[in-house]
Amino acid sequence: MDRERQQKAELLQRTIKHVDITAHDTRALIAAFQEMSFSARELGRACEIFERMLRDPDCTIILTVAGSTSAAGCMQVYVDMIRHNMVDVVVATGATVVDMDFFEALGFSHYRGSQFADDSMLRAHYVDRIYDTYIDEEELQHCDRAIKEIADALPPKPYSSRAFIREMGRWLVANPGCAAKKASLVQSAFEQGVPIFCPAFSDSSAGFGLVAHQVERPNDHLTIDSVADFRELTELKMQAKDSGLLIVGGGSPKNFAQDTVVCAEILGHDVPMHKYSIQITVADVRDGACSSSSLKEAGSWGKVDASAEQMVFAEATLALPLLAAYGYHNGSWRDRPKRRLARLLTRD
Amino acid sequence: MDRERQQKAELLQRTIKHVDITAHDTRALIAAFQEMSFSARELGRACEIFERMLRDPDCTIILTVAGSTSAAGCMQVYVDMIRHNMVDVVVATGATVVDMDFFEALGFSHYRGSQFADDSMLRAHYVDRIYDTYIDEEELQHCDRAIKEIADALPPKPYSSRAFIREMGRWLVANPGCAAKKASLVQSAFEQGVPIFCPAFSDSSAGFGLVAHQVERPNDHLTIDSVADFRELTELKMQAKDSGLLIVGGGSPKNFAQDTVVCAEILGHDVPMHKYSIQITVADVRDGACSSSSLKEAGSWGKVDASAEQMVFAEATLALPLLAAYGYHNGSWRDRPKRRLARLLTRD
Amino acid sequence: MDRERQQKAELLQRTIKHVDITAHDTRALIAAFQEMSFSARELGRACEIFERMLRDPDCTIILTVAGSTSAAGCMQVYVDMIRHNMVDVVVATGATVVDMDFFEALGFSHYRGSQFADDSMLRAHYVDRIYDTYIDEEELQHCDRAIKEIADALPPKPYSSRAFIREMGRWLVANPGCAAKKASLVQSAFEQGVPIFCPAFSDSSAGFGLVAHQVERPNDHLTIDSVADFRELTELKMQAKDSGLLIVGGGSPKNFAQDTVVCAEILGHDVPMHKYSIQITVADVRDGACSSSSLKEAGSWGKVDASAEQMVFAEATLALPLLAAYGYHNGSWRDRPKRRLARLLTRD
Amino acid sequence: MDRERQQKAELLQRTIKHVDITAHDTRALIAAFQEMSFSARELGRACEIFERMLRDPDCTIILTVAGSTSAAGCMQVYVDMIRHNMVDVVVATGATVVDMDFFEALGFSHYRGSQFADDSMLRAHYVDRIYDTYIDEEELQHCDRAIKEIADALPPKPYSSRAFIREMGRWLVANPGCAAKKASLVQSAFEQGVPIFCPAFSDSSAGFGLVAHQVERPNDHLTIDSVADFRELTELKMQAKDSGLLIVGGGSPKNFAQDTVVCAEILGHDVPMHKYSIQITVADVRDGACSSSSLKEAGSWGKVDASAEQMVFAEATLALPLLAAYGYHNGSWRDRPKRRLARLLTRD
Repeated sequence: MDRERQQKAELLQRTIKHVDITAHDTRALIAAFQEMSFSARELGRACEIFERMLRDPDCTIILTVAGSTSAAGCMQVYVDMIRHNMVDVVVATGATVVDMDFFEALGFSHYRGSQFADDSMLRAHYVDRIYDTYIDEEELQHCDRAIKEIADALPPKPYSSRAFIREMGRWLVANPGCAAKKASLVQSAFEQGVPIFCPAFSDSSAGFGLVAHQVERPNDHLTIDSVADFRELTELKMQAKDSGLLIVGGGSPKNFAQDTVVCAEILGHDVPMHKYSIQITVADVRDGACSSSSLKEAGSWGKVDASAEQMVFAEATLALPLLAAYGYHNGSWRDRPKRRLARLLTRD
Repeated sequence: MDRERQQKAELLQRTIKHVDITAHDTRALIAAFQEMSFSARELGRACEIFERMLRDPDCTIILTVAGSTSAAGCMQVYVDMIRHNMVDVVVATGATVVDMDFFEALGFSHYRGSQFADDSMLRAHYVDRIYDTYIDEEELQHCDRAIKEIADALPPKPYSSRAFIREMGRWLVANPGCAAKKASLVQSAFEQGVPIFCPAFSDSSAGFGLVAHQVERPNDHLTIDSVADFRELTELKMQAKDSGLLIVGGGSPKNFAQDTVVCAEILGHDVPMHKYSIQITVADVRDGACSSSSLKEAGSWGKVDASAEQMVFAEATLALPLLAAYGYHNGSWRDRPKRRLARLLTRD
Repeated sequence: MDRERQQKAELLQRTIKHVDITAHDTRALIAAFQEMSFSARELGRACEIFERMLRDPDCTIILTVAGSTSAAGCMQVYVDMIRHNMVDVVVATGATVVDMDFFEALGFSHYRGSQFADDSMLRAHYVDRIYDTYIDEEELQHCDRAIKEIADALPPKPYSSRAFIREMGRWLVANPGCAAKKASLVQSAFEQGVPIFCPAFSDSSAGFGLVAHQVERPNDHLTIDSVADFRELTELKMQAKDSGLLIVGGGSPKNFAQDTVVCAEILGHDVPMHKYSIQITVADVRDGACSSSSLKEAGSWGKVDASAEQMVFAEATLALPLLAAYGYHNGSWRDRPKRRLARLLTRD
Repeated sequence: MDRERQQKAELLQRTIKHVDITAHDTRALIAAFQEMSFSARELGRACEIFERMLRDPDCTIILTVAGSTSAAGCMQVYVDMIRHNMVDVVVATGATVVDMDFFEALGFSHYRGSQFADDSMLRAHYVDRIYDTYIDEEELQHCDRAIKEIADALPPKPYSSRAFIREMGRWLVANPGCAAKKASLVQSAFEQGVPIFCPAFSDSSAGFGLVAHQVERPNDHLTIDSVADFRELTELKMQAKDSGLLIVGGGSPKNFAQDTVVCAEILGHDVPMHKYSIQITVADVRDGACSSSSLKEAGSWGKVDASAEQMVFAEATLALPLLAAYGYHNGSWRDRPKRRLARLLTRD
């Protein structure tokens, strides 16, 4: 018993530290990359487009996040972009928002592990693996329960994921004893009025907690209306003069955010395409999936403007900190109008 | 004007034909692949595991589909697997089910195009591109409107995507004039009692129609409860003695289907891991995302049994027809118990 | 001791069997692929171009092979293409020709293993691993020694790799006791007069044997003149009216074969670009390397004609047998003029 | 005419600038990466291993380069590693050494272009494309001719590529009027006594010049003996106490450098495996090729020591400057013994 505890403790001893973009001024390096070729230049041009987004007073910036970068050390990048007014809306996977961020908000950590570990050994210790990163599954279950607790306390009606995530932020603020890490994405977004959408919200730890909530209260439970998410995000797109996309990974957040242009059109509104767009991904275009599809292809759908788009071929933990630090140290965010878009969608 | 019509017609003259697995007996080729190495052997072993799923009377088979394979010529593969009792549940992206299948059900087609086309020219013609495949955007808007029409006619309450897709199937049966292609996935699944889930349903043409429905009826509209999807799929997992996953692509369908094991556990039920699992993907494990994560990694989470899992490194249009035809021509589906799982979830 | 022997025997019990394209008629399947999208259509179009090459009486067909497909079960595909007059010249890596083919000619085998094996355990048993394929290193050393034996018996002068590989073929014919497998690539090419070039010949088991040869005879040894290879291959290109490339993998064989057009130009000869070209690879264009570079890019260099080129995104063990079988069963090779290009380069 | 000149000049107006690692101190960023996951941590660990190589007084460091990183802005990285005693031997492709570096030594440049350019238009202008990088083909032919000139002036006998590249360096020093860029890789390596090997030397602009040399002098020409390369590199490995590999890309340089361990063994010398090894590549292990093969796999062959190996999943223009700058700014190279290995192989 003790021996097993000991072994598990050894597996989980090296925590992931999130990179701090405010501590690394990458401007000179990016300037050098801009005069090279291949991925270096792609990243260099993406930085230039990102800077244009930040300087454009009419541009609402939408960050989309899929994949596990936030577990892998980029969570603080996202938080800093929210805190320093570099992002107005977030569209993410449930895992990013709940299993990774809300989980860390509760005081838990991710751990540096190995992709070569024996998964049956990990299973025996209730250690979950994401490539070379470990999670304590027993801790993850606290996260599920917190979600259920939040749901249990809310009026039983349909919520967009955005509205529910806002309640998660409110709960963290109201329960400082539970919010062991104040600078979580969910709490920071709540405080800064940045809405977070999860187009596949139940596909995460949130889902576990919410299913438990519904099963326990068959006639008296809240629901997560995914149509409301799309409607709300489209509203934000319609209210923006222009918009820019910063896409990390791909997945349903990418598709969802891109689609708002078409949705507005279907509602009879003539909105411009996303004026700027950047995607960081290693997905290969030849599989024909949305994640890997080029931003030029999105131009054929009328979703993004092909004149200011850039794909960056890199696993995001390498490229995103360089790009976000570039934007941070350039400082254009200081002059950006603060949008607090959450206010457009709620009355509190 | 006429000239533009002509140009558009030239772009859209070569329709995609869906491959017919019943016409290609791949058993001898797969047997040869099983004695080779690399992807050939991976596919060979996946076929062997698929055959074990089909022969195991206790195994509920869950097909998950992400990406655009159904636009690209694999739609009939999925339909044939449903019709020949090779699949009991489908979890897919909204695009697969609505933009691609329901769209073809209405009589529209996908077209063979080129990934080298000029996207601004395509845009000018309202031709949407998926890699080397074209879609007529004007036709796609019919699809959005049909979804709205279905929604408008339903009682305004929360629906799981599964329940709504069932209504789409019912509508096709009830409106044979609209269902130009009878052998659609949605209609076939309705007829065979195979439930289809979309964990990110609004992230598609369905979303467009449903947002229009909600906007038009602010106080009197249906909602899509994504929690209900997860709850229902977990119920199916709990009622199955064993289960197997056939994962095409990755994305939220993969995560969703895998997660049912953990969800059941959280509800206090001790269910076995998915006993068999196969994934066909070109995603690279090194980006740490769910789509690319190995099935062995899923073993660390207790989601899949590592003793019968196989990743196949191939773009699915090449590998899936070979695998599905192998299963079809072996004929074990003839003796499989017919589950009609839709009945467990609905009372009609 | 015995126990170790036993363990090694267990590792090496399942031999790779090479796929027999004459036994699998893939024409109907390829016809179906031609009406789909993505990789299926890419392979379909590649088959069409391959057929055009085979039917064009003026087209010299150059097969280039990099990677380990011949160890992995495609060796017989290459042999059958030589024997059935589907290929006139081969450019390959040293590993393909010596470590894999000549090795099997001597009676040794490759084995089906696992990419998840413990490499230090394999090392302890002198088992070499290529992804999921095993080789007995003790057997490989026989191969090195045979190369040395051949070199020791030849007049000490510069040889192109082509000339040396021809001597390897002659040795196999002259020593039937050593040539346990008559249908090797080296022997078949010798018999059919098909020249084989290795632009990096020493980078293989051949290198081991030849270095030993040179070290033992410091003043009396043969050399491998890589310039002669390029000169000879360019001569063949100059004598051909037209040419087509079938590129498996990429690497130096791809570059070498493409470059002959430019080399001829530098020698003052105006030769046409390679008229047809096909490449099967999973390499990603975004790394800017030659292996992954598109055939369209080669068009900018004047190396290949962009009007009949096709990249196929697939690991070759899956796609090559389908393509080669398509060409075989179409039967156009029956009417192709037999070139026996080796005769142009040697006087024996 | 003038108009065409003008258009070509517009295509070739933005030169590639090579990144200067001495100007970017990446130590703090790498320290942050070491506490993250995925590629960031892989790069972090690679840096740590690189630092160990640099501090180990017994370790000969072998740099291998394949791909086009030197055209793309990393040439100065390689030069700085040579000049600051961070590398003792280079194994590279002919393109890296001749078409890219020697070409720039002659005063020519690479240009920032676009991967979306029309290749037939480029062809019409004699502009060659490497992904998003342009080359003036007319300039490249000067390079071929310089190689021929060097060959014409040398005694006609077999040379290793190493010996010939040394003569290229000597020629640059002796003809300062031709060596427009003094800090070329070839000249720096000559000056610092660092041997450069090209296992497929003729597969490049060198090949064009050398074929022309041989064709012009059928009975009186030099040859490039690829066996001598392998013999010489193995000698260097045998004379080193320990060795480390820094592998950029993969290709024949990777295989060649790894193989020296086995070659020494075959010559009857018991040399240690490469003690440290790092590879930066985006190649996917699942294709079973040498370029993508893991360093752990190389452990099964007894080539590299698995205890200090690290694969880094990144396109090299992004990752290599960070790694090389880390090594540079740590400064351990100041205390490294200077090997000047060229002296072991030549008498001048």
